[in-house]
Amino acid sequence: MPRLKIAVIPGDGIGKEVIPVGIKALEAAGRQFGIDFDWVHFDWSCETYHRTGRMMPEDGIEQLSGFDAIYLGAVGYPGVPDHISLWGLLLPIRRAFDQYVNLRPVRLFEGVPCPLASKQPGDIDFLVVRENVEGEYSSIGGIQYEGTEHEVVVQQSIFTRRGTDRIIDYAFKMAQSRTAKHLTSATKSNGIYHSMPFWDKRVQEMGKAYPDVRVDQYHIDILTAHFVRMPEHFDVVVGSNLFGDILSDLGPACTGTIAIAPSANINPEKQFPSMFEPVHGSAPDIAGQGIANPLGTIWAGAMMMQHLGYPDVHDVLLRAIENVLRTAQTLTRDMGGNAGTEALGNAVIAEIG
Amino acid sequence: MPRLKIAVIPGDGIGKEVIPVGIKALEAAGRQFGIDFDWVHFDWSCETYHRTGRMMPEDGIEQLSGFDAIYLGAVGYPGVPDHISLWGLLLPIRRAFDQYVNLRPVRLFEGVPCPLASKQPGDIDFLVVRENVEGEYSSIGGIQYEGTEHEVVVQQSIFTRRGTDRIIDYAFKMAQSRTAKHLTSATKSNGIYHSMPFWDKRVQEMGKAYPDVRVDQYHIDILTAHFVRMPEHFDVVVGSNLFGDILSDLGPACTGTIAIAPSANINPEKQFPSMFEPVHGSAPDIAGQGIANPLGTIWAGAMMMQHLGYPDVHDVLLRAIENVLRTAQTLTRDMGGNAGTEALGNAVIAEIG
Ligand SMILES: CC(C)[C@H](C(=O)O)[C@@H](O)C(=O)O
Ligand SMILES: CC(C)[C@H](C(=O)O)[C@@H](O)C(=O)O
Repeated sequence: MPRLKIAVIPGDGIGKEVIPVGIKALEAAGRQFGIDFDWVHFDWSCETYHRTGRMMPEDGIEQLSGFDAIYLGAVGYPGVPDHISLWGLLLPIRRAFDQYVNLRPVRLFEGVPCPLASKQPGDIDFLVVRENVEGEYSSIGGIQYEGTEHEVVVQQSIFTRRGTDRIIDYAFKMAQSRTAKHLTSATKSNGIYHSMPFWDKRVQEMGKAYPDVRVDQYHIDILTAHFVRMPEHFDVVVGSNLFGDILSDLGPACTGTIAIAPSANINPEKQFPSMFEPVHGSAPDIAGQGIANPLGTIWAGAMMMQHLGYPDVHDVLLRAIENVLRTAQTLTRDMGGNAGTEALGNAVIAEIG
Repeated sequence: MPRLKIAVIPGDGIGKEVIPVGIKALEAAGRQFGIDFDWVHFDWSCETYHRTGRMMPEDGIEQLSGFDAIYLGAVGYPGVPDHISLWGLLLPIRRAFDQYVNLRPVRLFEGVPCPLASKQPGDIDFLVVRENVEGEYSSIGGIQYEGTEHEVVVQQSIFTRRGTDRIIDYAFKMAQSRTAKHLTSATKSNGIYHSMPFWDKRVQEMGKAYPDVRVDQYHIDILTAHFVRMPEHFDVVVGSNLFGDILSDLGPACTGTIAIAPSANINPEKQFPSMFEPVHGSAPDIAGQGIANPLGTIWAGAMMMQHLGYPDVHDVLLRAIENVLRTAQTLTRDMGGNAGTEALGNAVIAEIG
C-alpha cells in the first residue's frame, strides 16, 4: 500500500482554512485507491516572520527535501511587505527544488457563471505553462543614489538557454499530448530588446522537434486582449515567469474560476519535491470567518496526485469538483452561494463517495 | 487664424489607409473653429528600411522637431523583425521628444457589443496612463556565450526617480481632474524585487500632494483579472511602460474597442512635438483592401487637438464617433458591418456637419 509523505505549509490567512479541507478530500479520494498519506505540518508564515525574523528556518529547504511533495496554502499578511514574505518562502522553494514548470489549467465549468458574454462550458479549456524560476523574477539589480532625487533603479531579468529551452520543450510536449496540438507563445519582442527576441528564437528552434504541433505567438499586450476576445482559440500557452503569471490570473478571470484556480510548481524530473497551491492569496479580508473557497486547494491536490503518478485519483477529485459546481447547491459566497469552507469541502467529499 | 503644422507618418500596411481619413476628419472639425492645417508627409516605413537599411533618415528626429505634433499610422511589416522596425522609428521618437506620457482612454460605447456579460454603456470609462520612455522597454543588456548552449541573456529595466515621479504625478493630476478622483497603480512588487517596490514607494510618496485622490494598487496579475471582473471599478490606472502597454490593450478588449483605441504619446511640457496614433498595428492581413477601421486614427486625432489646446475640436470629433457607433449603420467588417474605410470616414465627417 503506497504511503505518500507530504509536507504541508498552510501559511497565512485563509491558507490555514483551506488546507485542512484539501487534506480531507485527498484522503477520501486516496482511500478508494488504497493510498495512504503522511502529512507533516510546517507552521512557516508571516507570523513566524514576526516572531523570528525569518519566513522559514535557515535549514527550511533541507527539512522539505525528503518529501514526495509540498502542499501550500497561501503566504502573505498585512504588515509584512510582499517582497519579503515571498522571497523568504515561496520563491526560494520554487528555485531550490528547481520547480521550473508552473502549470495552471483554465476551464469553463458548467454551473460557473462566465464573465464573458456568450461562452459555453466546453468552449474554454486550456493550460498555461509558465517558466517558474528565472526571467523577470529576479533579485539581481539595485539602486544607485538611494533616497535622493537622483535615484536610479536597475532591475535585471535573466534568461538562460537551458531555462528557456526546457520550459518551451515542456510546453511543446504538453501540446503534443493534447487533441488540438496547438501551442501559443507569449512574447514582447517588439519592445523588450534582448530577452524576448531570444525567447522567440528558442520557440522556433525547439519547435523543429514537434512538427505536428501548430505554433503561434502573440505579443503579451494583444495576447491578453485575445484571452478576452477568443479564449476558445487557446490550447497550451507558454510564457516567461512574468507573462505566465499574468496570463494565469487573467485566464481564470475569463472563466470565472479565479477563486478556484490551482497552481502546480513542478520539477518534471522528480529530483526534488514539487509544490501544489491554490492561485488565490491569503485573503486577510475574509480570513478567520470560515467562508474561504477550498476548491482551488482541492484542485491543486488533484494535480499533486497526477504528478505523483496517480491520474485516477486526480480524475476522481476533478469529477467531484465538477459535480459540485454543476449542481451549485453548496457554494461559498464568492461563487454566489452561502455555504462555508467546511460545508463545501464536505460536498466534494460526498461526491467522491 | 491658427495654422497647425503636423508631421504625418502613415507608415506601413493599413496605416497608409487610415491616416488620409483621419486627416479629412480633422480638417472638417477644424474648419468649424477656423483652424487650418499644414500636413507634411514622411514616407518612413519598413519599405524605407528595405530600400535604405534605416526606418528613418539619420536626421529624422531633427526633421520632425519643428512640428506642432506628429500623426502616425502604424509601423511594422512581415520580413522586418518587430524589434528593428520599432526601435528604428516609434520608440526613438517617443524618447527623443520625451513623450513620457502615454494616454489611452477605455470606453464602452453605445452600439458596440461588449465582450463582457451584463455591462452597459456608461459602466466603463477609464484612462490608462502609461510611462512611455523608460522601464522595461530597454535595449540595455545583452547575450553572453551567444549561439552556444550556455547562452545567458541579461535584460535590464531602468527606473529613474525622475521618470517614475513624473508619470505618477501626471496620473494623480488626471485623477484629481475627474469626478471619481480614483487612481489605481499597477505593480508587481511581490515578484520583481527592485523596480516594483521602488514604484510602490514613489506612488505612496507622490500621493501625499493629492489627499483628495483615492489610491489603490494591485499586482499586475490580479489587476488584469479585475479588468475583466469589474472594469467599472477603474477611473485612472497608472502603470510602467510594460504594464501600461498590457493594460491599454486589455482595457479596450474588455469594451470591444480594440480596433478603435487611440494612443497619445505626450510631452506634457510641450518642449517637443507629441505623437498621436491608433493602437492597432499595420495589419498586413487586411492591408490594401480598403476595409481598415479608421475610427482609432480619428480618435487619436481628437486627442491631438485636445493636447494642442482645442478641446472643442476634440469634443466634436468624439461626438461624431459616438453617433456613428450608436446608429451602427456604417461600420467596417471588424465591427460587424460591411462598409469600407472611406465610407466609415465619410459617415463620421457627415456627423461633424
Ligand atoms: C509596437 C510596440 C512597440 C508598441 C509598444 O509596446 O509600445 C505598441 O504595442 C504600443 O502599445 O504602442
Ligand atoms: C505571490 C506571487 C509572488 C506569485 C507569483 O507571482 O509567482 C503569485 O502571484 C503566483 O502566481 O503564484
